[in-house]
Amino acid sequence: MNDAGDRVGAAAAVTRLTRWVDDFPVPGVRFGDLTPVFADGLALRSVVSELALGFEDVDLVAGIDARGFLLGAGVALELGCGVLAVRKAGKLPPPVHSRSYDLEYGTAELQIPTAIDVAGKRVLVVDDVLATGGTVDAAARLLAEQGAVIAGAAVVLEIAVLAGRDRCSGYPLDCLVRV
Amino acid sequence: MNDAGDRVGAAAAVTRLTRWVDDFPVPGVRFGDLTPVFADGLALRSVVSELALGFEDVDLVAGIDARGFLLGAGVALELGCGVLAVRKAGKLPPPVHSRSYDLEYGTAELQIPTAIDVAGKRVLVVDDVLATGGTVDAAARLLAEQGAVIAGAAVVLEIAVLAGRDRCSGYPLDCLVRV
Repeated sequence: MNDAGDRVGAAAAVTRLTRWVDDFPVPGVRFGDLTPVFADGLALRSVVSELALGFEDVDLVAGIDARGFLLGAGVALELGCGVLAVRKAGKLPPPVHSRSYDLEYGTAELQIPTAIDVAGKRVLVVDDVLATGGTVDAAARLLAEQGAVIAGAAVVLEIAVLAGRDRCSGYPLDCLVRV
Repeated sequence: MNDAGDRVGAAAAVTRLTRWVDDFPVPGVRFGDLTPVFADGLALRSVVSELALGFEDVDLVAGIDARGFLLGAGVALELGCGVLAVRKAGKLPPPVHSRSYDLEYGTAELQIPTAIDVAGKRVLVVDDVLATGGTVDAAARLLAEQGAVIAGAAVVLEIAVLAGRDRCSGYPLDCLVRV
């Protein structure tokens, strides 16, 4: 069990270690690269613990391709459940369930294998950054379409100006750091 | 600390849960999809523990984009260190260190941010499947070029007929299941 001090420490580590890069991957977008956060053992541990906090009753964590995999696996291990890799189109062999969505700079499609039955399972969606919210919400809807109960979504970094929070409705959204 | 029984159990879970798909991503390739292994809480925990075993002295785990992220983060948390996301080209904002390599079906490039100093660090490379060995060995060489000491490579599934093991020389290679 964590206390409030751990949350403050985790947030401080994210703020200190995130690398901000302008005009990536396209002009006009400011990219928050969390690679240095994950590469720091103490930061990784504290971030994973904080994302898991409050979701002790989930059956499955859904990590979003690809940076959400790093966090999703950690949160799943912390919670004692498995991690479902929610993949970008073309990465999984068929048959898959798919859902298309808009993102900050283009469109994309998320997929999960039909072989994994999520019906009735309480699922926590995990990703690194909440921008427009399109990716997180598409993952939640893709899972809900297959009968999953969305227990919530947990994200490290929320880009507040893009109002992604407004898009993620119908389930609790926990963001560790809001910028 | 694990015993031999855990290794047998982890290997059995991988064998039981792996989904084999012919002609993916290209004709002639048989793809081992480990998604159901990761989505199973007990299998995820036992596989991560087994991959970490014997590498307790590493400073950093390198997880290879993208399925290696799922395992790499777990192994890093098990070992109490951070995970470096070794990314495919175009995913990381500049500046990066890069290395090109051949894979089973084409060519590719791996990158790490220059912002993360790996010089002198003992690094364990983690991925899901060892096919030709091109990806794992390229990650090891990319890291070694920046001064890292390659403590070893740990992989869930080794496709023996592709002889990837021969390519991964100069560091210990641990594969949980050999098919």
